[in-house]
Order: sequence, then C-alpha cells, then structure tokens
Amino acid sequence: MANNNSATSTAQLRLASLSAQLDTTAPRDPVTEILETSLPPVRLHADALSALLDGQDQTWRKWTFEQLKHPLFEYQYNVPKEELVTRNQERTRHLAKLGFRPTWTEPKDNIDKDKFMQIQDALSYFDNGLSTLNGAHFGLYYGSIRELGSEAVQNKWLPLADTFEVPGCFALTELGHGSNPRGIETEAHWDFKEGCYIINTPNTTAQKYWIGAAAETAYMSVVWAQLYIPHPTDPSHPPSHKGIHAFLVPIRDLTTRSPLPGVTIRNCGSKSGLNGVDNGRLWFDHVKVPRHMCLDKYGGVNEQGVYESFFGDNNDQRFGGQLVNLSEGRVGLSISSDNISKTALTIAVRYGLTRRQFGARQVGELETLIMDYKLHQRRLYPLLAQTYAQHFAARAIARLRDADKTDLKLLKQFHVISSGLKSLHTWHLLDTLQATREACGGQGLKSSNRIGQMKADCDVMATYEGDNQVMLITVAKGCINDYKPTRIPPLANFTSQHFSDSTLLSPKFQLDLFQHHIHASAHRLHAAIDLSRAQAKAQGTPNIGLDKILDTHSALSQEFARAVIEHWILSEFIAQETLSSSSTSGTGSSPLTLMRQLHALWKLDMDQNIIRRRYLDEPVQERIRDLVGGLLHRVHENITPLVDAFGVPDHLLGPIAGDWVQANVAEGSEDI
Amino acid sequence: MANNNSATSTAQLRLASLSAQLDTTAPRDPVTEILETSLPPVRLHADALSALLDGQDQTWRKWTFEQLKHPLFEYQYNVPKEELVTRNQERTRHLAKLGFRPTWTEPKDNIDKDKFMQIQDALSYFDNGLSTLNGAHFGLYYGSIRELGSEAVQNKWLPLADTFEVPGCFALTELGHGSNPRGIETEAHWDFKEGCYIINTPNTTAQKYWIGAAAETAYMSVVWAQLYIPHPTDPSHPPSHKGIHAFLVPIRDLTTRSPLPGVTIRNCGSKSGLNGVDNGRLWFDHVKVPRHMCLDKYGGVNEQGVYESFFGDNNDQRFGGQLVNLSEGRVGLSISSDNISKTALTIAVRYGLTRRQFGARQVGELETLIMDYKLHQRRLYPLLAQTYAQHFAARAIARLRDADKTDLKLLKQFHVISSGLKSLHTWHLLDTLQATREACGGQGLKSSNRIGQMKADCDVMATYEGDNQVMLITVAKGCINDYKPTRIPPLANFTSQHFSDSTLLSPKFQLDLFQHHIHASAHRLHAAIDLSRAQAKAQGTPNIGLDKILDTHSALSQEFARAVIEHWILSEFIAQETLSSSSTSGTGSSPLTLMRQLHALWKLDMDQNIIRRRYLDEPVQERIRDLVGGLLHRVHENITPLVDAFGVPDHLLGPIAGDWVQANVAEGSEDI
Ligand SMILES: Cc1cc2nc3c(=O)[nH]c(=O)nc-3n(C[C@H](O)[C@H](O)[C@H](O)COP(=O)(O)OP(=O)(O)OC[C@H]3O[C@@H](n4cnc5c(N)ncnc54)[C@H](O)[C@@H]3O)c2cc1C
Ligand SMILES: Cc1cc2nc3c(=O)[nH]c(=O)nc-3n(C[C@H](O)[C@H](O)[C@H](O)COP(=O)(O)OP(=O)(O)OC[C@H]3O[C@@H](n4cnc5c(N)ncnc54)[C@H](O)[C@@H]3O)c2cc1C
Repeated sequence: MANNNSATSTAQLRLASLSAQLDTTAPRDPVTEILETSLPPVRLHADALSALLDGQDQTWRKWTFEQLKHPLFEYQYNVPKEELVTRNQERTRHLAKLGFRPTWTEPKDNIDKDKFMQIQDALSYFDNGLSTLNGAHFGLYYGSIRELGSEAVQNKWLPLADTFEVPGCFALTELGHGSNPRGIETEAHWDFKEGCYIINTPNTTAQKYWIGAAAETAYMSVVWAQLYIPHPTDPSHPPSHKGIHAFLVPIRDLTTRSPLPGVTIRNCGSKSGLNGVDNGRLWFDHVKVPRHMCLDKYGGVNEQGVYESFFGDNNDQRFGGQLVNLSEGRVGLSISSDNISKTALTIAVRYGLTRRQFGARQVGELETLIMDYKLHQRRLYPLLAQTYAQHFAARAIARLRDADKTDLKLLKQFHVISSGLKSLHTWHLLDTLQATREACGGQGLKSSNRIGQMKADCDVMATYEGDNQVMLITVAKGCINDYKPTRIPPLANFTSQHFSDSTLLSPKFQLDLFQHHIHASAHRLHAAIDLSRAQAKAQGTPNIGLDKILDTHSALSQEFARAVIEHWILSEFIAQETLSSSSTSGTGSSPLTLMRQLHALWKLDMDQNIIRRRYLDEPVQERIRDLVGGLLHRVHENITPLVDAFGVPDHLLGPIAGDWVQANVAEGSEDI
Repeated sequence: MANNNSATSTAQLRLASLSAQLDTTAPRDPVTEILETSLPPVRLHADALSALLDGQDQTWRKWTFEQLKHPLFEYQYNVPKEELVTRNQERTRHLAKLGFRPTWTEPKDNIDKDKFMQIQDALSYFDNGLSTLNGAHFGLYYGSIRELGSEAVQNKWLPLADTFEVPGCFALTELGHGSNPRGIETEAHWDFKEGCYIINTPNTTAQKYWIGAAAETAYMSVVWAQLYIPHPTDPSHPPSHKGIHAFLVPIRDLTTRSPLPGVTIRNCGSKSGLNGVDNGRLWFDHVKVPRHMCLDKYGGVNEQGVYESFFGDNNDQRFGGQLVNLSEGRVGLSISSDNISKTALTIAVRYGLTRRQFGARQVGELETLIMDYKLHQRRLYPLLAQTYAQHFAARAIARLRDADKTDLKLLKQFHVISSGLKSLHTWHLLDTLQATREACGGQGLKSSNRIGQMKADCDVMATYEGDNQVMLITVAKGCINDYKPTRIPPLANFTSQHFSDSTLLSPKFQLDLFQHHIHASAHRLHAAIDLSRAQAKAQGTPNIGLDKILDTHSALSQEFARAVIEHWILSEFIAQETLSSSSTSGTGSSPLTLMRQLHALWKLDMDQNIIRRRYLDEPVQERIRDLVGGLLHRVHENITPLVDAFGVPDHLLGPIAGDWVQANVAEGSEDI
C-alpha cells in the first residue's frame, strides 16, 4: 500500500478520531488523502470523448437523430397494441424509403459500412420495438435468405424485402421448443411424386410461437423444420432424417392479406412490453413448398431429386452453420443494450443534477441536489463505468464478426464470446434500467420519461436470441477446455502482498487479477468435473455428459463463464484506453482511464464471486473500497461531460432530463 | 466441521477423483454425503403448512378468492387506462357492497379482525392496481379522517367513504417534494375575517403530484399544507408558521363531477404500470376551507379563533404524529409484496415442473424438466426460502402495529422496522418477479401469465410510501444509537473455528452470526462517524449533521441498516419455527426448519456484505456452500407441497401454471 498509515482499519480510524480531539491538525479520511495523492484530476472534453466512443465523423448518426424528429416518431402511450404495430410498420417503411438498410443488406463490396453502422446504431436509442421489428425482418428473415438462399431466390425476394414492401418473419421457436431449437417438431417431407417439400405441424407443441411480425405484418416466413427424405422406392422404409432446414414459405396473400390455404395464424396476445411487435403463432397443414424455396446452401434436395449437403451426414453441424445469423443478432443486442443503458443513465443523471430533496433548514430554502448524495452516486456511477467498458467490448465483437469467416477457431471464439456478451450486456441493461428508474423516483415510471417504458420493452432481451442463463452455459462449455488443467499456469499469489495505490489502479494489476480469476475458477471447475466423472464411473454410468456435470456444479460453471466474459470486456477496454491515450495529450488522467479504474475496482470491491475467493488481503480489499470512493468523487466532478459524450439527443430523453418544472405547468400539459 | 475429510478443497477433490480411478469404492461428493449424514428428509403436508402460514381457519380467505371469480374480476390487457380505471372503481364498489372493509375502517371494539385481515390479504394476490386504489381510499384518505378528524367530520364523511360512494384521495406529495414531504409548499392561511382557511398552490413545484385516484375517481381530498396564522391585529407582522396540517377539501362537484371552482385537476399521464390507478395533479387557487374541515386532532384553530396544538410549538413532531398512517401503509406493502412473490413463485415452479428443454438424444424423446436443473433450482428456491422468512416478519410487524400505541419506544421501533421491512420486502419482490419472469422464458412476458404484468404494476412499490433507499437511511439513523460503542459487546470470534454441520444448521449459530454482523457494522459505522466528526471539528464546522455523515459513509450505513432488518427477519422466523415445532410432531425435519436453514445459509454464502467481512474461515464458508447444495436438494424433493402451501388459487395463476399446451390450441385461443 502506498502509505500504510492510511489503512482504514477501525482501530486506526478510532485513533485518528481521538487524536483529532487532542490537537488541531485536521484528521483526514482515506478518501480525501487518496484524492490528493493518488488520483489526479481528469481532463475531459465531451466532444473529444464522444469522438473516442463513436468516431470522428458522426454525420450519419446525426442525420438519423434528425429523422427521428418526424411526427411519425413521436412516442405513443396508452394506445392499443394494434396501433403500435401499424405505427411501427409505417416507421419501418418510412426509413426504408429514406434509404435505411441495416449493414448486412448491402451488396458486400459496395457498402458504406460506417454509414449503415451509424444509422443502425442511432436507431437503437429510439425504441426497442422498432429495433426488434427491423431485426426480425432485416436481420433474421432477410439475412437467412441472403446467407442460405439460391441466387434466384435472392434475386426475387430480397428487392421486395429491401423496401419493406413484402415484410417477412423468422419462424424457428415453437411452443414446446425455445432454448433448445434442435428439438423442434415441425416437419418437412420431401415428396418425390410432386417434386416439392410438404411442411406440416404435427401437434400443438409444434406450433411456431413468438414469431416476430407473424401475427399481422409478415407475408413471408422463413420456416425451420426437420427434413425427412423418404426412401425413393420403398414406402415401407422409414424416411431418412436430415435434421433442421429452412424454407421460404408465403403465409399471407399479397393482395387480401388473408392467411394462405393450409396456414393458420394466431396472435401471441398482449405482452408486458414490446407490444409494437406483433408476435404470432403459425400452424402448417401439409403446405407444399417448391424445391427452390428451400434455403439450401448447406443442404437440400437437388435437381435430380437427391439430397445433398455440404456437411454430409452431420445434421448438428449443418444446423449450427445455418444459424450464424443468430450470433450476429446477439452482437446487435449487445450494442443496443449499451445504447439504451446510455439513454437511461443520461436521463437519471440529468434529473439528479436538477432534482433537490432534503437538506434545507426551512421551507423555501434550497435543498440538496440528489446527485450530490454519495449514496446516489454509488448507485449510478459504477453502472456508468460498466457501460463505458461494455461499449468497447461490443465494438470489438463487431470487428470479430467482420473478420475472416473461414478461420474456424475465430468463428468459434466469435460464437462463444458473442453469446456471453449478449448475456452480460442485456443483464447490465436490466440492472441499469431498474436502478435509474428508482433513481428518478415516481418520475421514472411516467411513460414520457422513457425509463419505465424501456424497462417494459427491454425485459425480453434477457430471453430472445438465446436465454441469458443458457448463453452462459454455452460459454462454460465452449471455454472450459481452453483452460485444461495442464494448461492452467500455477496460481499466482495475490494474498499477503501490499500493493501501492498506483498498482491497484493500473491496468496490469487489474487485468492480472481478472485473468487469475478465470484460471482459479477453471481450476475449481475441473476438479469438480473430475470428481463427478470418477463418481459416475464408480457407479457404472461413465457416459455422463458434460452438460449434466456442468449443471451439477452450476454455481462454479456460471462463475467461470462470467470470469471469461468479464476478462474479455476489461481487456478490450484497456486496449482501447491504450490506443486512445497515444492519440490524446494533456496532463491529468484520461476519462477512459477513470472509467476503467472505477469499472475494474468496483468489480473487485463488489463482485460476489470475486470477493468470496479472497484473492486479496483484507487491508488491500479495504484500500480498494477507499479508492472506489475517490474515483466516484472524480466521476462526480466530471459527470456532465461524461454523460454528454454519449451524445443522446434531447428529443430521445423525455421531460425530466430537461426543464421538468416547465413541462409540468398546468396549461396544456394534460395527460402527457 | 463434522468430518474434516469432506472439505471441498480442490486438492482433496483431485485426490478423491484420482483414488476413484484406482479402486472401486465410489467417491462421494460432499453434497451426497451431507444428504446422508446431516440433512434428514423433510416431513411435509401442504395443508398443515398452509395452516401454519395462514391460520387454521381460512374461511374468509377462501370466500374472497371465490368472489374473484366474478366476471368483473377478469384480467384485462391491451385496454386504455381510462377503461382500467373505470373497472377498478366498479370492482371496489362491488367489494364494498359485499361488505369488504379494510381492517381499520371497522369500529375498534366491534371487529372481526381475522375476517378483514383474511379478505385484505387475499385481495392482494389479485392485482396491485386494485390494492393501491383501496389503499389510497380506505387506507390513506379514510384513515386520515378517522385518525385526525373531529367526530362531526367523521360522522359525516366516513359513511360516504365506507361504500365508496364518495371516493377520496390523499394529497401530500408535490412535484417538487416527494421523499421529503416536510418541504411541501402548498399553503393554508388562516383568515380571521372569514373564519376559514385559504388553501393555495403558490407555484408549479407546489402542485400536488402522483395523487392516487385524483385524476378521475375522487370527489374529496385530504390536502396537506403549511399552515400560516397571521397576526390577529397587525397585518404587517409576518404570519406564524405552524408546520404541516391536513385539510379535508372537496375537489369535484358531487353531481357534475367537474372540478370545483379554484381547483385544477390534471392527469399524471400514462405510466409503465399501475395504469388502473388514476394518478392526478392538483392546484388550489385560494380555495376556502371551513374551520371544521381541518383534520385537527393534533393542532388547528379553535372555535375562539386561536391556534392550539397537542404538540405545542414542535411542528416536526406534530407532522410525525399525523403521518402514522403511512407506517401502517408500509406494513400493508410488506404483506402484499410477499403475497405477490408467492404468486410469481407458484407460477414459475409449476411451469418448471411441466416445461422440458434439452437432454433428449433425438427428436420426440422426452427432454429434461427445467425444474430438474440445479441451475434453475438455485435461481428459484432461495427466493422461495426468503419469501417464507418474510411471511413471518410481516405478520410480526403487523402484531407490533396493533400493540400498545402509548409505548413510545415500541412506536419508534414500529416506525423504524416497518420502514426497513418495506424496503427489503418490496425489493425482494422485484428480484423475485425478475427471476421468475426469466425462469419462464418468453411465456413470462405474456400478460395472461401474470408475471410480466405484475412486474410492471409492482415496480412502484420500491418508491411509493417511502423510497426504499431513503427508508434504509431512516433505519440507519434510527438505530445507530441503539448500538452505541459502549453498548456493543466485544466482537465474537467466528474465524478459526471449525463448526459441525449441525451447528452451522442450527438457529443459534445463524442468529448469532446475523447479530454479530449488526454489531460489527455498527462498530465500523461508529468509527467512521467519529472520524467525520473529528475532521469537521478540526475544520471549524463542528455542526455537521448526522444525515450528512451517514451519506459520506453510505456503504457502511446501508450495510448496517440491512443487517438490522435481516436479523429481525431471521429472528422472527426462528421464533415461529420454535412455536410451530412444539405444536407438530413426527420425525424428520420440519418444512419451516428447511426454509429457515436455506434462507440463512444462502445469505451467509451469497450476501456480499457478509462474505466481504470474512467472519468465517474459508473451509467453513465452503462447507456452507455444500450445505446449501444439500438443502436445495431437499427443497426440490418437496417442492410441490412447498408452493401448494401458499394456497394461491388456480384462477390467479395464468395458463402456464396449468395445462399450457391445451391453453394454446389453435381453436378459440386467438389473442389471449
Ligand atoms: C417477444 C419475443 C420475440 C421473439 N421473436 C422470435 C422470432 O422472431 N423468431 C423465433 O424463432 N423466436 C422468437 N422468440 C423466441 C425466443 O427465441 C425464445 O423465447 C427463447 O429462445 C427462449 O425460449 P423459451 O421462451 O421457450 O424459454 P425456455 O427455453 O422454455 O426457457 C425457460 C427457462 O428454462 C431455463 N433453461 C432452459 N434450458 C436450461 C438448462 N439446460 N439449464 C438450466 N436452465 C435452463 C432458461 O434459463 C429459462 O429460464 C421470441 C420470443 C419473445 C418473447
Ligand atoms: C404511482 C404512484 C402513486 C402515488 N400515490 C401517492 C398518493 O396517493 N399520495 C401522495 O401523497 N403521494 C403519492 N405518491 C408519491 C410517492 O410517495 C413519492 O413518489 C415518493 O415519496 C418518492 O418521491 P419522489 O417520487 O419525488 O422521489 P424523490 O424524492 O425525488 O427521489 C428520487 C431519488 O432520490 C433519492 N434520494 C432522495 N433523497 C435522498 C437522500 N437523502 N439520500 C440519497 N438519495 C436520496 C431517492 O432514493 C430516489 O431514488 C405516489 C407515487 C407514485 C409513483
């Protein structure tokens, strides 16, 4: 420790307080001393920071924010869901007319990537219902045709999808099959005589369920089904099961909008949020689908009527290959989560800087700003720091997405990390929305102030495109063998060491500790796995699967998975901090350094998984808490530019982020 | 520890796994061993347990649940808030006709307390909007008249309120003044000439805000205002400020329903939940209020035109005395929170016992029940145990409410503990709703399955009747002097002790540790307070207030407040367990014992505040985690009766708690 006398053991605190009563030199609390010695002031310009976050050129971002001032984008509350759905369709069509396309809908070589990234990114601040509808149509539906469809199918259907003239949906999930899509029951039988596929819903649990845009909006659907090929000549022979394939199936008449023959459509009904998306249920009664409408890049019946597949007989790998779009969707969810967190934090912090409560001695005297309460700072600023950290992690995984797709190791890393990030980013969003909602008191519930509404609309993010808990199982399963016992370095020893403040604040120490935490949790998990295997063997059931074992040790599995992803986030943050510090100058510490220090030390101070492991001695642990106190103070000094740098425009923030007294005058403000 | 060899140090786990490969005796994991040696099976009958929870005679409870089958109580979704409000008015009127009155509306000596407790309790399972409307009218409005009004006022207005013929509201909060109602700006000036009070809203921040039932429903309002008495003869003399008083003010014409002259009413607008309650905003423009309409039990202008008060000049104490109703409301919130947690847990557990996902080797094979995953159990069962614990705490605070009101020490304890319980119970509810929502996957969002809707409607519980964070400040402030350094016993030493399983599972050990945690946090907080005081003194600002100091050490303050309340909850639970064990017989452990053990050990294993303090040695801490594993196993064996005992009837549970496949057939289930 920098100065051993500054340890906050209670004995020393008492001593300090006693001696203060004896002489006149002021006793100083550890946080005051830290601010003077270990934490230099921060040099911060919101514009420069904003450029670090979102790039120097933000033309298209700003353009999009301008478009959102169109009356079509006024927020609506207290309207039936049918109206929200219609409005969302209009908004999507309007944007498509303006030239909006998500990145992946552009021809690969002729693309102003940055433009489309900016537009997409900017939209996500606005409304998760609109993002989700766009994601279902442009991401899942359009993306599947583009990734898996033949050229003819693409040439016919993509232009119609481009303009949202013929909206589509993506029908994988069934009533009985969500997290485990491999269990779906919808069937596609190849019919030799007719030369087409026949799609059928065999029972109630096989109905397609939750299909975004299916209830009202979509004319077309990408339908996932188990493919069966009958024996070409012997009808008594059981058909050959080829696993899951995707089919492009018209579900509504293009002129009458009625369901087509053989197709039954129902609404999933009212939801506690996201009612701007019409989720539907679909049944198929022996619907004939022409051969070319199978999205058969990786497998299907060829012109000769013979099934052939890039993956041969490996049904499981084929399905994985077909679903690469879903991983891309997860990256999108991480980015939107962060943007919505930024919006909520901007609202709550701005309100905290204008809202006063308590602290006056008499009626009429100015009360204390709630943002000046340390308790309020502790509630919001660590979330702010984590949002900064995640911002760079989401950008990094997006770069990994765009990297070489033939590198299988990279692909696997992309799949695993994007799954893990999706969990932590969306959970962080839900935590942030709850904390900011409460931080705004009753105002947080008022729809026009957005936070309550965002809570309702974003809750689903923990579930769709992969349930968060299941995603962390994916991470544990996907990574545990990268940390084979033999490859785990001997455990570092952090205890009984006295670290100076500058060490505790340094990227190296923080990253080392996060890394150590991965190794230590991998170590414990391996030991537990070995024990379970040995036990199973002794009991004569040696074929126990890894899934089962990981579940038996679910606390350890989840701890390990989180450790891997938290480390990834911190290391990407540090990489960015290093990059940016070489490009900026001036004295004092940089805002990214401040955010990274708070983010990492807050975890070391508060993360239940980390503190239970006692990697650090108690005095060091106490010193970390004091450092956190100092960092929160520095954040508070700079809080306005720190949230301004997010660049969320005023029209997306709601009245409490601005002049909320004026917004509440009696005249003309009825029922907002 | 019972058996030292069973410690799960990684070295030992490795050894066990290695030796298993060498001989044929099965290695056993610590949880298996714990189940055989330390945790006897549980004897459990849902009915007996239900009687323990809710009493032997549940006639009125069952009666109420029956009433809720009336079509008027069908859940409505996707309807405008105006319709929800009208429906809630109808429901309240209907119940009033059936004879429903909350406990406190009955004449004190002539009351079937148990009857009204049961009815009130049963209602809270149904809908928080209806509870809140009833709470605003019968609790806050009615209660204020009854507690503070003259006999004449009571005789006139209570009968009209009884039947909900003349609904009323309670107008304390203002746009500018929420958590700190002492800062309200609405003014009441005594007018000597006219012999009445004149109520006025001096500016925009003084508008009454969030007033439940004010926007549409209420004819009357209890309006809180700063009372000023002018000098009887000298108009140039500044008026004398008497602090806050309550006035019964008609706000709408009883026949036309229009706002009365001088009263402006606006709607607070759409909210992210609880839209069945019409929250409104009120302005008063020099509205005359007759002398007798001041609710002046503790202070007001007498017939001679002279101000007199039970509390003399102590404005602050007078306000506290007048607000005792709010504390009663907090008890009600704790009870409802627990009931809603029970409902959500029942839904999620029943779904978990019918929902299958993963684990089949081929399409069509039965998958694993999600409730069989240990990960899923870890997510839900500790919340179940805490709900059991809280159930008894809420009952205990209700008994304290009914105790002798002249005992000032008891009254203070009631105020402080009810504030703290309100925070922890409502936060527990929000955690439970989030966890159960996610545990049901997408189905958790479907309005008809209730959880998502309850989330939206209950979010406000963390804010109204006292913001949770502010409530914990109240606890810290109210209790820290009960733990004066001189009165704190020398800290017990738990470290370096090896506890047997039976000790770790015992009520005594668990309560001792919770108690120790209070003392240890009080100790740290006192040291910090002393330091701050000494520092302030040395800096020449010795008058620093306790509020400010507690905020400076906000982490310690909140830790201390939580410790006090958690200990209260555990000790009430243990008291009940002891009582009930003497009245039951049979072998095996009792369900309350199981729930208490899991509740307490889960906190010792997971509570961030406790584990960071390292009260226990690491091997003991690891053993506790293993014991938790064993307890979760025992809970799983008994999970059906454990939730059945809550007695939430099927019609309040939604389709996923029952036959959700049948509820989703294509025919007749459109848009549920
Ligand atoms: C609003 C909305 C829109 C959607 N849009 C679409 C769409 O357009 N197209 C589409 O195809 N699908 C869509 N979905 C479906 C979505 O992808 C699924 O909801 C998601 O995959 C989760 O499946 P589930 O809801 O069936 O939950 P389940 O899989 O039933 O999960 C329930 C619970 O079980 C737990 N669980 C499951 N497996 C395990 C395990 N092995 N171990 C421990 N716990 C486990 C989970 O953690 C979860 O808490 C949408 C869903 C919603 C709610
Ligand atoms: C739906 C609804 C119904 C209601 N019904 C009624 C009603 O019928 N009648 C009525 O009179 N009122 C009613 N209320 C008002 C309710 O009691 C207030 O909302 C509540 O007291 C909180 O006040 P606030 O919303 O102004 O939040 P604020 O007091 O502004 O609090 C905002 C934030 O500041 C924080 N904060 C405040 N003080 C401190 C501090 N000292 N230290 C640290 N942090 C602090 C809080 O923790 C909170 O997070 C209702 C409110 C709602 C939302």
